[in-house]
This record gives sequence, structure tokens and C-alpha cells, in this order.
Amino acid sequence: MKAISESFSEESAIERCSRCADRMLAILRTSGRLPEIGLPDATIRRFVYELACCDSNNRYDKVAVGAGEREGRIASSIVAELHMGLAHGMGRSGNLTDQQPKAIGSSMLARIANSLTSDIIESLGMGNVRGTLILPFATGMSLAFCLSSWRRNKPNAKYVVFLRIDQLSCFKAIFVAGYEPIIIDCVRDEDRDTLTTDIDGLTRVLKEKHDKILAVLSTTSCFAPRGPDDVEAVGEVCSRYRIKHLVNNAYGLQSRECRRRIDMAGGKGHVDAFVQSLDKNFLVPVGGSLIATFDEEAIDAIAQFYPGRASLVPSRDLMITLLHLGRNGFMNIYQRQTELFELLVKKTNELASTISERVLQTPTNLTSIAITLTGLPADEQTLLGSILFDRGITGARVVCPGIKKCILGHEFFNYGSHSSKDQPPYLNIACAIGMSREEVDILIETIRKEYSELRAKARRRSIVRGSE
Amino acid sequence: MKAISESFSEESAIERCSRCADRMLAILRTSGRLPEIGLPDATIRRFVYELACCDSNNRYDKVAVGAGEREGRIASSIVAELHMGLAHGMGRSGNLTDQQPKAIGSSMLARIANSLTSDIIESLGMGNVRGTLILPFATGMSLAFCLSSWRRNKPNAKYVVFLRIDQLSCFKAIFVAGYEPIIIDCVRDEDRDTLTTDIDGLTRVLKEKHDKILAVLSTTSCFAPRGPDDVEAVGEVCSRYRIKHLVNNAYGLQSRECRRRIDMAGGKGHVDAFVQSLDKNFLVPVGGSLIATFDEEAIDAIAQFYPGRASLVPSRDLMITLLHLGRNGFMNIYQRQTELFELLVKKTNELASTISERVLQTPTNLTSIAITLTGLPADEQTLLGSILFDRGITGARVVCPGIKKCILGHEFFNYGSHSSKDQPPYLNIACAIGMSREEVDILIETIRKEYSELRAKARRRSIVRGSE
Amino acid sequence: MKAISESFSEESAIERCSRCADRMLAILRTSGRLPEIGLPDATIRRFVYELACCDSNNRYDKVAVGAGEREGRIASSIVAELHMGLAHGMGRSGNLTDQQPKAIGSSMLARIANSLTSDIIESLGMGNVRGTLILPFATGMSLAFCLSSWRRNKPNAKYVVFLRIDQLSCFKAIFVAGYEPIIIDCVRDEDRDTLTTDIDGLTRVLKEKHDKILAVLSTTSCFAPRGPDDVEAVGEVCSRYRIKHLVNNAYGLQSRECRRRIDMAGGKGHVDAFVQSLDKNFLVPVGGSLIATFDEEAIDAIAQFYPGRASLVPSRDLMITLLHLGRNGFMNIYQRQTELFELLVKKTNELASTISERVLQTPTNLTSIAITLTGLPADEQTLLGSILFDRGITGARVVCPGIKKCILGHEFFNYGSHSSKDQPPYLNIACAIGMSREEVDILIETIRKEYSELRAKARRRSIVRGSE
Amino acid sequence: MKAISESFSEESAIERCSRCADRMLAILRTSGRLPEIGLPDATIRRFVYELACCDSNNRYDKVAVGAGEREGRIASSIVAELHMGLAHGMGRSGNLTDQQPKAIGSSMLARIANSLTSDIIESLGMGNVRGTLILPFATGMSLAFCLSSWRRNKPNAKYVVFLRIDQLSCFKAIFVAGYEPIIIDCVRDEDRDTLTTDIDGLTRVLKEKHDKILAVLSTTSCFAPRGPDDVEAVGEVCSRYRIKHLVNNAYGLQSRECRRRIDMAGGKGHVDAFVQSLDKNFLVPVGGSLIATFDEEAIDAIAQFYPGRASLVPSRDLMITLLHLGRNGFMNIYQRQTELFELLVKKTNELASTISERVLQTPTNLTSIAITLTGLPADEQTLLGSILFDRGITGARVVCPGIKKCILGHEFFNYGSHSSKDQPPYLNIACAIGMSREEVDILIETIRKEYSELRAKARRRSIVRGSE
Repeated sequence: MKAISESFSEESAIERCSRCADRMLAILRTSGRLPEIGLPDATIRRFVYELACCDSNNRYDKVAVGAGEREGRIASSIVAELHMGLAHGMGRSGNLTDQQPKAIGSSMLARIANSLTSDIIESLGMGNVRGTLILPFATGMSLAFCLSSWRRNKPNAKYVVFLRIDQLSCFKAIFVAGYEPIIIDCVRDEDRDTLTTDIDGLTRVLKEKHDKILAVLSTTSCFAPRGPDDVEAVGEVCSRYRIKHLVNNAYGLQSRECRRRIDMAGGKGHVDAFVQSLDKNFLVPVGGSLIATFDEEAIDAIAQFYPGRASLVPSRDLMITLLHLGRNGFMNIYQRQTELFELLVKKTNELASTISERVLQTPTNLTSIAITLTGLPADEQTLLGSILFDRGITGARVVCPGIKKCILGHEFFNYGSHSSKDQPPYLNIACAIGMSREEVDILIETIRKEYSELRAKARRRSIVRGSE
Repeated sequence: MKAISESFSEESAIERCSRCADRMLAILRTSGRLPEIGLPDATIRRFVYELACCDSNNRYDKVAVGAGEREGRIASSIVAELHMGLAHGMGRSGNLTDQQPKAIGSSMLARIANSLTSDIIESLGMGNVRGTLILPFATGMSLAFCLSSWRRNKPNAKYVVFLRIDQLSCFKAIFVAGYEPIIIDCVRDEDRDTLTTDIDGLTRVLKEKHDKILAVLSTTSCFAPRGPDDVEAVGEVCSRYRIKHLVNNAYGLQSRECRRRIDMAGGKGHVDAFVQSLDKNFLVPVGGSLIATFDEEAIDAIAQFYPGRASLVPSRDLMITLLHLGRNGFMNIYQRQTELFELLVKKTNELASTISERVLQTPTNLTSIAITLTGLPADEQTLLGSILFDRGITGARVVCPGIKKCILGHEFFNYGSHSSKDQPPYLNIACAIGMSREEVDILIETIRKEYSELRAKARRRSIVRGSE
Repeated sequence: MKAISESFSEESAIERCSRCADRMLAILRTSGRLPEIGLPDATIRRFVYELACCDSNNRYDKVAVGAGEREGRIASSIVAELHMGLAHGMGRSGNLTDQQPKAIGSSMLARIANSLTSDIIESLGMGNVRGTLILPFATGMSLAFCLSSWRRNKPNAKYVVFLRIDQLSCFKAIFVAGYEPIIIDCVRDEDRDTLTTDIDGLTRVLKEKHDKILAVLSTTSCFAPRGPDDVEAVGEVCSRYRIKHLVNNAYGLQSRECRRRIDMAGGKGHVDAFVQSLDKNFLVPVGGSLIATFDEEAIDAIAQFYPGRASLVPSRDLMITLLHLGRNGFMNIYQRQTELFELLVKKTNELASTISERVLQTPTNLTSIAITLTGLPADEQTLLGSILFDRGITGARVVCPGIKKCILGHEFFNYGSHSSKDQPPYLNIACAIGMSREEVDILIETIRKEYSELRAKARRRSIVRGSE
Repeated sequence: MKAISESFSEESAIERCSRCADRMLAILRTSGRLPEIGLPDATIRRFVYELACCDSNNRYDKVAVGAGEREGRIASSIVAELHMGLAHGMGRSGNLTDQQPKAIGSSMLARIANSLTSDIIESLGMGNVRGTLILPFATGMSLAFCLSSWRRNKPNAKYVVFLRIDQLSCFKAIFVAGYEPIIIDCVRDEDRDTLTTDIDGLTRVLKEKHDKILAVLSTTSCFAPRGPDDVEAVGEVCSRYRIKHLVNNAYGLQSRECRRRIDMAGGKGHVDAFVQSLDKNFLVPVGGSLIATFDEEAIDAIAQFYPGRASLVPSRDLMITLLHLGRNGFMNIYQRQTELFELLVKKTNELASTISERVLQTPTNLTSIAITLTGLPADEQTLLGSILFDRGITGARVVCPGIKKCILGHEFFNYGSHSSKDQPPYLNIACAIGMSREEVDILIETIRKEYSELRAKARRRSIVRGSE
């Protein structure tokens, strides 16, 4: 047979390639820091498969015998490939971040993902953060899990104070953890439309019931006219009464204002953990969230409380996405959101002035705005929402005052608007990361067109009625 | 330009193909029953992509504008492809099984997966089951979640009775849900070695503290010499005191005996929910579990309690795997485990007799057996475990008596052997689904070889010592 | 930020994994020999991506600037992934096996694929083969290409002798290469039904026109009742007249008899090249073929004649398939075909005797058999073919005598049966690699059923006619 | 079991989705025209898998039995997935565009790919083209194949006239087809540096030997200072002598000038076929090319000449890429090349003036330019090429005068510069589709830096020598 006679130049080229690759892998494995420039897809896939090859289900150097009840066997080759050969999940019963002897590669991946996340969070200016943990469930479950993990510290606590935000999953999280909520309504900012924290009300409640209260659950990312809670002031009161402070930062990582508030409060010891969605902040599919703390031991305690193994998918998705973007690509996406949000505000203000409506003044909310719909009759307001959906616009939401909703025994007035205070009817629109300039343009244009048609129709009707 | 002139025969062939495909899809969508014979990979992929195309992030018929905070955008094409275009997860804040307007396809997939699972569970002889729910976290978290969801029914309960099983995640689940455990040790079957339920002890405890007890947590699948709990008797006592009965059936779906016990008890109203791992029973990667109930409303109540959206991945993996195997393929895998387990028992008995050890008599445990290691000095016993791992055998586990372990404030004696009763040292080996005949052969041969060498070494040492 | 503190045990486990992987890759790269046992999918993917990372379009260590006209850029991420990042194809204008400086990894892959193929061909008992070359087009084009590459050796030649085989692409290949065919009909073996080489006729033709003849094109793999040509005798005559001998071994690699004949003749210097299909012999998609020679320089001369670059896909598919199967897996597939073919012959003989038909005696054909259809009226014979196709049986083919066909100016009598000699009508069925026992059973059963129904119908008709 | 109760709204949403999808598929299948806007990946994958499901190897409605020698079986699931379940290639022995009964879906895909290509070529302004055919081999083989397919029309022809272009594969194609080249050197444009067609020389040759000449092979896309041949004038002479005219348009589809020349000549009946690379013009991996004609029957004749089946991969890649880009995306890529090429010319001229070199005046070449290197000593000229490669710049090429090369018996003087005329040494750089603005900037900057360093070094050396 003809031999493979490798010429010298090929040998050296391969050597060079291998050295490069190995250097990168070594860097990732040891320092866990994100490359500045994103990597080509083939190199990312190579890296993930290299990790997968460290797991026992992919071993090929000796005969593999699985004599346990969970051996990473996968029946469908489609499924195997959708997991890139990674079958064992992450963690052990004792600790979510423990290394699995059967699954060294999976364990490393989980660790690298946490490390890259820490790195990028530092790049985002949150220099006080000391620990991050990717959990394979979404924000609501993670909030619940944090609360549960703190129970041992205050076994007699019965309540979690809920700074009202009309996100159902956030409210339900309190019940999942086994607590009753004490709801504190938002108050309106004196000079503007923003709904924000009732610090006085909170202080009164804590003063009175602090020995029965486990934690305060505040929220930063939200739909206008609510703004981020005054995390520092909230945390300061919590610290005074030795009550935990948990921040629901669902999609707030992309907001400079949310990051600033949390990091400042955290640096002073006033935040025990904050939770954010992976899909909303990192452009991955729904399914994971990120818990971060300002204290290394705090994050370990949460990880150790986890009962058993967990899906590796969110960690994998996040790692791949960060390697794909690189630090530069990631920062560009965030920067782009800032620019487009400013554009959206400007264009919406222009639109509002032409249709005699008003954009609510919510300068601390950097992702969402609200435009009033007072010029439309009540039933046309909700109709506008449906029409927009039909026109291919998802995520725009009409909020009308006066809705009562009872959730798990608690009643909310003006549900959807975060406050029982009076509000005009309004339309919420947001500019989140990944939105394009073209989308902003079409969005404004479509609202203009549909609003105008509805108003014109309403006028014709009223004329007809008037003439009857 | 030259036109595509489709000949009549092509037209009719395509029509036929389309009709077949559409018929299958229609059947899946409406009846949700599993085909008898597995489908080719290309047809499965086609089906999943068809579902993905119903989600708003894959629409192409009109301009898509995302004006919300979560629009299913994915930054990395690798990640997009690992999720087959499905980005929205499943559920809404109100209910895990609710349909998402933005994600009709994802919602359908979740529903079809639940339906196929119900179907296969019926095929496995569990005819009394009335509802199944795939949750995107593993058994431990699902057990915790069931307990949490029941809290409202008995707000003053403080305890969950734990029929001892030395699986850490199962025990931790009680704490995650916010309860204290009352531990009831196993008792030994009179005639045999099996460790099983102390029904008298349980009855005493329930009688005394029933008003403070939320639930009893029993276990069916386990390592020998523990056997499945007497689910029916346990459930009967629970029913008497109106206490919930939750069964940890982690990898027990593959055991005829576990299925029989649970279904019989459930049929009589004595089981409120049972939980099993997806990876261990369905050959998918770690990350999901299945909750099943004998009452439709019971499963709905659990689904409604979930706070927010969740990963679709476990549902997707399970759906793909079941379509790939078909009912026949799935049943064959289970049948094969039964045959190979019998072979394993036979071969282990033969091995035991040649090395003067004993296979513990645990006839109700149909996945795991234990062989004594009394012929080895104490430190060689644990050494055997490491050597086997080194020889490429994963999952075999040596258990030595006398180990004390304190977990979350509770002390366990003889940890690892499920009982504080005296036990000889032993080696656990299991035959789970997916194991091959070749693996069984190598397993027995390796144990024989390594055991013999260790014993020979021990003898030489004792001779040397004796001659000193 | 919390560092990734890798424990010693992880470090050593990774080291071990890396060492294993690197050892395997090193072996593949240097020795190019096939592992005995197939590799897990994740390790194969890792290997391919590692090669891809050696190409310039996947470099990430420095800024990559493409200032040429072909830089391996791919617009669609789907396409990129279907090629695993490999964009540059193989070869350079000068030689198909030359190394591309821009694409070291692709070049290596092409070379490894050729090397693994050489290795497996040796394992199949063809110990005299000295060079193999994967070409990214199917058998017909490869036959043409071999002929073209030999033109310079005999610029005045005008003819290629065609030992008749009714495979259209084989005959057309002669014209593509620029030659005229001299057709030599098959003769029937004296004792049996086999159609085989007319050596006397061939000798006469060569004697007379040898100075105008470039080559003889013989065929080994074929549908019964044709058998493989007497390659040795043909080659011996060719050698005598210094005429090239090219063997069309399309799907004959899986036939012990074809391999034996070619290797024996080749060992004596009587075969200049033989060509086989990749899809038919290696279970990959259509698109590639393998040229093999008994002389290293001969294969180099063909590779050097290739005008430009070529697709890497067939090489990649073959390499992946061989690594997936391993030598054992590959040999098992071939062994299985041998067993099932024997079963097919046995069952068809049984069937024939029950329906008063006859299986033609073609003992040198080890993939295809022919069963007569003399008991059916003429128009029911062809109808049987359509009915079988409709019943889901592909590849069965009815051949009726008397068909004339004119191809590129040459007329064939009894087209489809390889000879103008008289033949009964017959049905061809084959057992190729990858066929399952179940398929054999259904095949025989379906033929039995459909044949009987057709005959019953025919009889009823003739009775009706008789009674008229 | 709980049924899947589909609510009305889900039903209607699915209906709507299905209708959209089906409408698109129907349009593609019947009209074969490209959508304006590119499709999301999930919809493209769905479409391809839908086609794959029409092939017999993916059928699931009845038992599939393969009784032939080629049944689309694939051994490795990796390979199956890399081909998206498409195993049968395209074509039949009789014709590359024939429909395969076993592979309706594959046949359709091949046809749709040809149709979309025709459509986009029309959009590019080549309105006279009447037929396109994707061949699964690169430009060189396709040129050879065209020539071969024309042989029957002029059996006594021995020559192909080669309008000199120093692309090896183009020259070799003539030999593969079985012809001898008559080489006609380029002449320099009077007013500028461009090397172009020697029409007088060509006319003389044709006049003299036309009865022995099959075709003239001209070239449009090339490296400066060669420009595109005067296709119209060439074709006009060919028509006069009834000689075929074949145009090598390797990467010229992206050049407005090349397209214009070919289409104008073709419209007048002066071009018999033109061939271009798929990878270079459509950003897909190497492996396919596109033959186009100005006459439907002409393309059919070529397709019918193909001997057997062929890989479907290039057709598939092209179809996916075009659906991904849509007409708009595709035109944008071409428009972008035009803009960046102008920028490259401008920047190179600026660079040239600062280093006292000259950009050769080649205004008809819209992809490549040449900058003189007269300021460098001879051996530093080639060194510059190596240094650039080392700096990560691929595709830049230094051409020095005086190189003789003998290819297949024919000698070329000044090989690499397309003409035996005197040339200064120069550096070729190109701007092809897919190049980015950033690449242009780095390219110019790197040349500036490396050129300057080499010249500085050369000067220091000459000073040292001078002072010795």
C-alpha cells in the first residue's frame, strides 16, 4: 500500500495549527476568559467535541462497560447530535458545580461557561460581582430556588416582601419557595410618570414584621411606566433588619441603569443575589438563567443546595454564544441596543406629537416605553393590540386601566400596570438586544398607520351616531 | 428561461408522498399516539422543523418585528441549529402547558411529547395513569416541585416522611420544598436479604403527627439490597390520614415490578404523583423528568403552579426518541433489559459460588444486585471499586458498612446501604436499559479477575506476615 | 471573579483524555490505518473539525485576509455546517492529491481517506493493490477519466473494446473519453446459464485491430445471468498486445468472486485500473467512486491528469463511515451480505420449485440472481415489475427478451439481458450490503403472492376465452 | 389518557402556518423562482427534509424492501445527517436531469436548483441565457465535459484553440476531452496595460485549420493585467467557421463586464456554452460548476451525454444558499463587491504613488489588479509573496517575468502572466464577493508595511555593499 508520506511543510503547518488550537483551549481551560474576537464556528465545534470526548460515554481507548443506572446512553442519533455527544448533564447530587468522574468534559464545560459569564459581567462594568452560576431553569424558578436555599438561615420566616411588578412568574416564585407575599405597591415619581419603589412603605413593613420576613424581592427590568426599583435604598433597609435582598433583573443586564444600580448596591453589601434570564440577555433559547452574587460563598451555598444533576444545555448554549461573539461582538450588541432604544424613543415622541398622544416620561427605563392611547375609544384600545400582532408585530402590549386579577389568593388592581394608581391606557413597546433598525422603522410606521385608521373609523362611527 | 415542467408521474408521486407525510403529521397532532414502527430520521427532522416554522421567530410570510423583551432571537447559528430553530421554550407564566401565541409550534411539541409519553406508559401496562407532564429538570427538582405545589392544600404541614433511600437528591428535595424530613429506616424482609418498608413504623408516625405531615415520599427504584417500597401499603396508610403520597420512581419505569406496584396503588387512589427520570428510562441526555398522576386535575394543578416558561429540550428529546424507536423499538429495549438482567443474575451467582461469596437475595429488585465482598480485607474492598473504574467499568459501586454521614442536619448510619441495620460489605452492579450482552460478559469477567488478584495479593501478604 | 481552580484529578483526567485522542489522531495522520473497533460519533466529529481548523478559512490566531478569487467563504450557515467547515475541496490544478497551502486540513483528509481505503482493500484480500484514489464522481465518469488519462500513451488509438454489459453509464463512458466502442457480445457458459466473456472473439478483435485500440473495458459486477468477466484471461490477451485493461467493478467489491478475479489478474500485471462505486460498496450517498491500481505510479498518473480542484465530500463521507464502522464493523457488513445472499438463493429456489419456474444457474454471481417468468403471459411479466415497485420493493427488475435499443449509434438486441442470445423472460433480484433478513423474507413473500395472483388471473382469463 | 385537545385558536394558527409553508413550497416547486427576501434557516431545513421524505429510502408508510444494488442505505448517522437524508444523488444513466423513480425528492431538488439559478442569472442581466445546468464537478472538468459532448458533431476535429490564460485546469481540460491545443498568445491593448485577445491571430488560425478545430476556448475572468477576452469578436469568427465557442467564466459571474460581454455575444448566437464555478460565484464549498447556454436544446444535449448518476451536493448547497440570501441578499453581495473593488483600486493607487510603483491600467478587469514591484530587487519580490502569506493574507500572488513552464508537452514563456510579452514584476490582488471592508484596509496596510521594510533592508544592504 502506498504510504502517507507527509512532506515537511505539511507537518509544520499542522504543528502550527495544533499549537494555536491547543493554546486557545489551554487558555480557556485555565483562565476561563473570553477571547476579544469571536471564533469561527468550526473551532467552536471542535472545542465542544473535544470536551465531549473527555466523558466516559465517548471513550474509545478501552472497552466501556456501564454497570450503573445512568450511563449516558442515547437511543436516537438525532438527539445525540443535538447534544454534541454530551449526555451526562452537570453536577452531582451533592453540588451542582461538582465534577462528575464519569463526565469530566461536561463538568469542565459547566465551569468554563460560568467563568466566561463572570468575565463578561465584569466587562459590563459590574466589577463588584464575585460569583455567577448558570441554572438550567428560567428566571422564575431561579428566584424561587434562591429563596429556598436561604430558608435554613431563618427557619421561622413566613413572608417575602414583593415590590409590585406585574410579572406573573416572579410573583409565583414566592409561593413555589413556600412563602407568603407582602405586596407593596409602586408609587409615582413626583416629577415624572415613572412608577418606582415606595421606600417608606417598605421601611414600615420591615420595621413591623422583620422577624417573620425572609427577603425582599425587588425588580429592575420592567415595562414602562414602571422603572427599576431603588435597589440601593431597598438593600440598605434590608441590611438594617438583616433581611435578604433578592433582585429580579430578568432582562436588565442589557440596561446600563439596571447594572449600575445593582452593582453599586451590591458593592455596599446590600444585595444577596440577582437573577437574570439567559435568553433575554444573551440571545439563546429559553431555558436558563444566571444567578450572581457579590460574595463567593453565597453562590457556593446556592449551588450546594441543588438536589441532583441538571441539564447542561443552557451552559453549553451560553458558552458557544460567547465564544461566537467574542467580547467585542457581545459589547457591540449591547451598544447597538442603546443606540436603537434612543432612536425608538425619539421616533415614538415624534409619532406621539403627530397623533396628540404622549410618551410617558420614564427616563430610568432603558428598554421599554409607553405611549398613551387616550385618543382611542376603550374597545379600540385593545383591538389595536390584536391588529399589531396580526401585522407581524410581536411583543407590543396594550394596557388598559381598571383590570382586577386575583392570583393565588391575592388581588391586584390595575393588573398589568404595576400599580393600583390611576393610569391612562397605553401601549408598551420595547427595544431589546437583537432588534434591528429596520424593525424600529416598521414598528413606528405600523403603529402610526393602524392607530390612525382606528381613530378615523371611530370618528366616522361617532359622526354616524351623532347624526342619528 | 427553461421552465420546470413537472411530468404527471412526478406530480402524483409528490402528491402521494405529501399525503403520507401529512397523514402522519395529522395523526400525531390530533391523536398524539406513537407509531408502531419507528420513523426514519429525515421524517422526524422534517416534523420538528415543521413545528418550528409555526413559531413567530421563523415566520417568513410577512415582515416580523419583535417589540417585546423576548423575541426568540438567537445569536449563534450553532445554537440555533442545536435547537432546530425552536427558541421560545414552553409554557407561559400562568401555566406550563399553556399555548404561547408567539410559539404555536413549540406549544404543540410540548403537548405531543406529553401525549406520546402517556401513550407509551399505557403500553407499559400502567393503565390507571391519567396524566403525564414532562418537566425540564431532573428527578430531585421534580420531587421538590410536587411537594411545593401541594403546600396550599395543607398550609400548616411541616414534615415530609422519608422512607429511607440513600439517594442524596431525593432527600435534599424535601428541604428545597421547604419541609423537614421524618426519616423511617428500612427493615429487612424476614425470609430474604431485601430491605423494604417499615409499614408499622410508618403507621405509628402518621398516627401521631399526621396533622403536621404533608406527604410520604416512598421510593421504588433503588440499589440492592433495598427493594421497592410497598407502595400500596404505604399509600393505603396515607389515604387513611389524608396525607399525600409521592413516589420516587427514578429509574423504575424499566422495572416491571415498580410499574406494577405503582399502577396498582394508583388505581386504588393511593398515589398522588410519581416521578421518573427521562435520561434513565428513555435514553436521552440528563435534564428532564416525568411526573405522572392517576387523576387529570392533579397534573394540571402541578403544571399551573410552575412559575414561568421552561426549556423545551427534554420534551423535544423525548418526542424524537419515541418517534425514532416507535412502540415496537421501545418495548424491545425494555424486553432486552429484562433478559439481560436475568443473565446478569445468573452469571453473578455462578461467579459468587466460585469465589465463595453470595449474591444477596433481592427478588423484587429487577435492575440492581449486590454481591458480598466478605472474602476481601476491608481496605481491598474499596480498592476493588477504584480498580473497576480504572478498567473502564462505570457505575459499579462498593458499599462498606459503618459509614456515618450527616446531611442538612440529619445523621445516617451505614450510609449508602439504605439502612442502619448490619450489612456485609458488597458490590453493587446494575443492568439498565441499553446495556449490551457484551458489556455483561466483560463486567463479570473483569470482576472475577480483579477480585481474584486482590484476594491472592491479600493472601500472600498474610503469609508474609504470618512468617515474620 | 471566582477563578476556575482545576483540581489535580481533573487535570490528570483531561491529560489522559487528550493523550488518548492525540495518540489516535497521530496514528491516523501518520499510519493511515483503520482502527479495529469503530469510534463513537463525538470522536469522529472532533477529528473532522480538527482537520477543518487547519484550513485558512477557519483560522483565528490572526486576522485573516482573503485577497484571491477563492477564499473558502460560505454564505449560508446551513451549508457551512453540512460541510463541517471544510470549504476548499481537494487538490490543486496540478494534481488532485497535491496539498493546498490554504487548506492543509482538507488536504490531509483527502490523503487519510485514500489511505484508509487502501487499508480496507488489503483487509478484503486484495493484497496486490498498490494505489487507491477517491474521485468525486460516480463510476461512469471515473471509467471515462481513466481512459482519457491513458490517451497520451497511444495517441492514435480510436477504439475501446466493450465486453457487453447492459449498464448505460459504462457504455457512455467510452464516448465521453472520446473513443468508439467495439462491442463483443457475451457467450453462454456450456454447463450453466451464466453469460460470460467471449475470449475467442476478443482475441480475434485484438489481433486484428490492436494498434487502433486503447483499452478493453471488462465488467465484474452485474445482474444475473451475466457473470463476472474472466478478468485474468482478458488481461492476459491485453498484455500480449500492450493494450490497457480497465475493469468496471461497480458494486463488485462486496463480491468475494469479483475481488478474487481482479486481484489475481492484477497481481500478474494484467489489470491497469479497476473502478468501483463508493455508494454501492461503502454505504455512503451517491457521488464518488474509487479507482485502484496495482502500481503506484499508475494511480499518480491518473491523479495528475485531473484538471483542477474537486469536491472533498466523497472522501469525507468515506473516511467518516470507515472510522464509524472500524475494520470489524466493515467486515461484518460484508460477511452478512454473503450469508443473506445464500439465504436469498435458497429461498428463491424453494419459491421457484413451488411455482414451476427456475432460478438460472449463475454460481459466479454473488449479488444477483434471476428467476424465470415463463409461466406468466408476456404482458403480465412487465406488470409484475410495476406491482412489486408499488408494494414498496425497489430494485427488482423484469427483463423480457426481444428488446432492441440504439445507443449513440450502436444497436443492442435483447437489451437488458447483456447478450443477443435467446433468454427466457426473468426477474432480477439482488442482495447487496445493508439488506436485512426481514427484507429478504418480505421480498420472497411478496413475489410469491403477486406472481400467484397474476397467474391465477391469467388462468381465469384464458378459461373465459376458452369458453367463449 | 388525557387527550390532546387542540383549542380552536391553535388549530387556526397551524392552518395558517401550514398554508404559508405550503404556498411557498408550491411556488418553489412549480415556478422555481427565488423569493425576494431570504428565508429563515428552519424553513429551509424543513423544505429540504420534505424533499428528502419523497425519496424511497425515507419512506415510512409501508415496509421498504431494497432488492437492487443501490438502495440509498447509509451506514453512518453522521453522513446521513450531512446529506440531510438525501442519498440517491441525481440523474439516471440516460440523462443527468432525468427523474429517478426511487428518488423523486432528489430529482425535484436538482430541478429546483437549476431553476433558481436560471432565475438569478436573469436578475444579473443575462437575459439571453436559456438553460443552466449544475454539474457536480469544478470548472476544469466541466469545460472538458462540454468539449467531449460536442465531439459527435465534428468527429474529425483534433484541436481546440486556447486563448492563453495561465490557469492550469483550463488548459488541462482540453487534454481530458481528448484534444490538442493550439495556443494563441495575448496581445497588449494599445493604450493601456491590459492583455487581451489577438483576434487577428485567431482569425488566421481558424481560416487555416477550421476543419480540424472543434472549438475555441476563451476566458473572461482572470488576474490582471489580463482582461476578459473579446467574447463577441471571438464568437463572431467562430460562427463564421462553424466552430464551437466555449467561454471559461470561472469567477466572472460577479463581474458586470464579463456578464455583459458573454450575454451580448450569446444573444447574437456567438457562444455555445459558458462555464463558471459555484464556489467562486455563489459562496459555497468547492465542488460544483454551472454550465449555461443560450439555447435550451444545447443544455439538454450536454445533460444527456452524462454517463450515470452524480452527486446532489452542489445543487443542494446552491439551492440552500439562494433561499437563504433571497434575491435581495444575493444582489447585495454582488453590489458590495463592486463598491469594495472600486475602493481597493483607489487605495492601491494611493499606495502605489507613495512607494513609486504603478497600478497597471486594466479597466475591464473588475475583480483583480496588479501593482508593479520594480522598486524591489528580484529575490525580494518573491519573498514579499511568502511574507504576505505568513501575515495571514491568502490569495495575493507575486508574478516575476522570465519563467518557462512546460505543460503536457507545450511550452509557456513568462508563465503566470498570460503572455510571452515583456512584463514588469507585479503583485496581484483581488476583491471577490464576500470580502469585507476591514480586509481591504488590512490588506493595503500590510502590503505597505512589508514592502517598505523589504525596500529599506535592500537599501541598507546595497549601502553596506557600496561601502565595502
